[in-house]
Amino acid sequence: MTSPSPPLRVLTLLTDFGTRDPFAGVMKGVILSLCPEARLVDLTHDIAPGDIHAGALALRWAAPHFPPATVHLAVVDPGVGGPRRPLVLQTPEARFVGPDNGLLWPAASLAGEPEGWEIDLSGWDRPMSATFHGRDVFAPAAAWLAAGKQPEAFCRPAREIVRLEWPRPEAQGETVRGAVIYVDRFGNAITNLSPADLGQSAEGEVIFTVVGQPVRGPSCSYGAVPAGSPVVVLGSAGLYEIAVNQGNAAAAMDLRIGSPVEVRAAGPVSWRRKRGSSWVEPR
Amino acid sequence: MTSPSPPLRVLTLLTDFGTRDPFAGVMKGVILSLCPEARLVDLTHDIAPGDIHAGALALRWAAPHFPPATVHLAVVDPGVGGPRRPLVLQTPEARFVGPDNGLLWPAASLAGEPEGWEIDLSGWDRPMSATFHGRDVFAPAAAWLAAGKQPEAFCRPAREIVRLEWPRPEAQGETVRGAVIYVDRFGNAITNLSPADLGQSAEGEVIFTVVGQPVRGPSCSYGAVPAGSPVVVLGSAGLYEIAVNQGNAAAAMDLRIGSPVEVRAAGPVSWRRKRGSSWVEPR
Amino acid sequence: MTSPSPPLRVLTLLTDFGTRDPFAGVMKGVILSLCPEARLVDLTHDIAPGDIHAGALALRWAAPHFPPATVHLAVVDPGVGGPRRPLVLQTPEARFVGPDNGLLWPAASLAGEPEGWEIDLSGWDRPMSATFHGRDVFAPAAAWLAAGKQPEAFCRPAREIVRLEWPRPEAQGETVRGAVIYVDRFGNAITNLSPADLGQSAEGEVIFTVVGQPVRGPSCSYGAVPAGSPVVVLGSAGLYEIAVNQGNAAAAMDLRIGSPVEVRAAGPVSWRRKRGSSWVEPR
Repeated sequence: MTSPSPPLRVLTLLTDFGTRDPFAGVMKGVILSLCPEARLVDLTHDIAPGDIHAGALALRWAAPHFPPATVHLAVVDPGVGGPRRPLVLQTPEARFVGPDNGLLWPAASLAGEPEGWEIDLSGWDRPMSATFHGRDVFAPAAAWLAAGKQPEAFCRPAREIVRLEWPRPEAQGETVRGAVIYVDRFGNAITNLSPADLGQSAEGEVIFTVVGQPVRGPSCSYGAVPAGSPVVVLGSAGLYEIAVNQGNAAAAMDLRIGSPVEVRAAGPVSWRRKRGSSWVEPR
Repeated sequence: MTSPSPPLRVLTLLTDFGTRDPFAGVMKGVILSLCPEARLVDLTHDIAPGDIHAGALALRWAAPHFPPATVHLAVVDPGVGGPRRPLVLQTPEARFVGPDNGLLWPAASLAGEPEGWEIDLSGWDRPMSATFHGRDVFAPAAAWLAAGKQPEAFCRPAREIVRLEWPRPEAQGETVRGAVIYVDRFGNAITNLSPADLGQSAEGEVIFTVVGQPVRGPSCSYGAVPAGSPVVVLGSAGLYEIAVNQGNAAAAMDLRIGSPVEVRAAGPVSWRRKRGSSWVEPR
Repeated sequence: MTSPSPPLRVLTLLTDFGTRDPFAGVMKGVILSLCPEARLVDLTHDIAPGDIHAGALALRWAAPHFPPATVHLAVVDPGVGGPRRPLVLQTPEARFVGPDNGLLWPAASLAGEPEGWEIDLSGWDRPMSATFHGRDVFAPAAAWLAAGKQPEAFCRPAREIVRLEWPRPEAQGETVRGAVIYVDRFGNAITNLSPADLGQSAEGEVIFTVVGQPVRGPSCSYGAVPAGSPVVVLGSAGLYEIAVNQGNAAAAMDLRIGSPVEVRAAGPVSWRRKRGSSWVEPR
C-alpha cells in the first residue's frame, strides 16, 4: 500500500459485564469521547461474573496475536470500590489496563516482567462512582494510552503487583500430574500440560489418564478417533486438551477446572522434563 | 495530535435481535453500504425480545457517554408493520433513530425536548418488508444521518411522540416509596430512587426497606458489608441499587422490576424533596 | 463528501465459537496484525456448535447487504484437522473464506458460480495447529485478501466444491409442500416457500397448512391477527414465515427445522409454478 497507515490505536475490551446490560456500551462511549480514533475490538464480555481466572486466561490467549502498541482494557473486578488498585502494565508489545487482582498478569508477563503503574486517583478530576470503575477509571486510562499519553502522565509506579499463575504440572516418577485449567464452549477441557512438560517423549507413545480413565493421545486432530470417542490433542494454545470427537468431553467425562490429568510413557523412556517449563512462561 | 481528525460518524446499535440470528449483521451491511465511513459500535443486541423499557433504559444509560454527533440506532420494535411511526429524534448532542414506541424517548429527552422527525415512507424507493424495518427503514436512515444528511432530507416533522417514563418515587410522610426499575446481569436491582429524592438527608443515616426487609445503606461499595450480605449503594447511574456483596441480590431477595423499595430517615430530619426531581430529567 | 474515501477493507466474521471463549478475539488479533486497516464487523459468533446449515443460512442472508469487495470470514468447522479443504470463493461482489463443507456455498453462489480457490497449505510458513484453523489458516487468508492480495498468491484452483442447498418445495397437484428451514430468536419459523413457488396466486387467497394445522396468510404484518394468533407473513428474506403475533410460533406450534408446511389455493386457480425457482437461486 502506498498511503501511510494511520496510527493503529487498537483497543480491545474484555469484561464480565455480559451483553444484555449497557455497561460495555457505556465504556465504549467513554473511550470514543476521549480518543475518537480508537479502534474498538470486543474480545469478550461473557467472562463468568467475577471469574478472574477465566478472564486472565482469555486475555493471555488473545493478546499475543494483536499488533504492537495495542491497548488491552480488561475489567473483571469483583473488588471494585475496595482497596484493590487500578493498574497499567506496560510491555514492549502492549499496554494492559485493569484491576490489580491478577487479571492482567499472565498476559502482561508473557515476555518478561512488565512495567507496573498504578493509576493515580488522588487528584482524579473525572466522575467517580463506587461500583463502575470500568467506566470511571479504566476506560479513561485506556483511552488516554490509545491517544498517545504515557502512563507517567496519570500513574505512579506500582509495587507488589498481584501475580496470578496456574498450577504447574508435577513430575512424580514416570508420571506427570496436571489438571484441567479451562473448559471451552465446545466442552474441550484444556490442561496445564504441554509437550515441554513431557520431555523428549512428547512425540512418542504416551498414555493420558483423565480422572482415572485412560485416553489415547496425543492425536493430530479430533477426527483421529471415531465420533463420540475421547481423544487428547495438542490444542491451539500449545497445551494438551481432552476432547470427544463431535462431542462434549466435559459433559461426557464430567470434567471441570481442577480435574486431574496424568500422563506417563507407554514404554520405558528417559524422562527429561525441563525444570520450570510452563505454559505461562515467556514464549 | 497534529493531523486533523476525520469526522467521527460513530453509529451505535441497540436491538433485541440477539446474536445468533443474522439480523444485526444484515443491518451492519446496509449501513456500511450507505455510509462506508460509519464506525459501528454494538451497544447490545441482547435486550429481551420486545422489552421496550429495558432497551430505553440501556440507551438512556449509554448514549450520554458518546461523543457529539453520534447516531444511535435502536430497534426494539414489537409493533413492526403496524401503525407505529419510524422516528428520528435530534438533540444538540446526538441523533436517535428507531420506532416511535418510547424506546428513544428517555435518552433523547435527557437534555430537554428533542426535535422530532418522522421518516417519510410515502415516496420510499428502497426495498420494504413487513417485518424488518430495522433493515429497511431504520438502518438506511441512521446511515444517511451518519453520512451527513439532515433529517429534513427524508423526514417530515413528527407530532405527539410517544413518551416513556419510569414511575416516579412518591413521598408519603417520612417515607419515600420507589421501585426496582432494572435488574442487571450481576443481580443488582436498580431502583428509581436517587439522592435528590431523599432531600438533604441523602448523605446521612437512612433506612432502606426492600420488599419489606430492612437493608443497610447507602454504602460506598459492595465490599462495605460482609460477603453474602445485602447492601444499598449509589450506583453508577446515580440511582440507588440493591446488591449483595459477591452475590446476586435479585435471586437472594426475589427482586424483579416493580419490586417496592422504601426509604426513610433513621432519625428525625427535615425532608426537603425537590418537586419533579427524577432520574429521567436533564442531567 | 469531498475527501476521497479510504479503501473499505470491510471484513466480517461469522463463527460458532461463542463469545465466552477467547477464540473470536484471537482471530481478530491475527487479522489486525496482518491487515491493520481491516474494519472488523461481527456478524455472529453464536451459530450453534457445528451447525453448518444455520451458519450458511446466516451468511447467505447477511452477505448481500454488504458493500462490494467485502471479505466474509466464516468458520463453522466440525471437520477441522481432517481432510476438508480450506477455501476461498470469489464473486464479482465479495470474497468468502472458510472450510469446504458447504458453509460458504449458498452465499457465494447467489449471483452465479463463484471462482473456487483452495488455500495451499503445502508451503505454509505460519504456525499451524490441529484444532484452530480459524486462527491459523482462515484468519490469515481473509486478512491477506482484505489487504489486497489476490487468491492466486496463496491458493490453487479448487475443484468439486461442497454445495449445500436447502430442500426445494415440491408441487403436488394443487398443493406445494415445503418445510421449515430456520427458527429465529423470536420463534418465527422461516420456510423454504417463496411467492415464486406459488405461481400467480401468491398475492391471492391461499391456505397454509403448518404441521397439519391451517394458518391464515399471507398477511402484511404480524399485527394483522390478534395477539397470540398464528399468521403467515412474507418475511424479510423473501420467504414465507410462520409467526404468532406477539408470541413464539415455534414454541406454540412445536415447529423445528424440517417441520412440514403446505400451501394450496383457497379456490380454483391455475398454478404456474416456475420450474427451478428457489430462494437459493441468484437474486
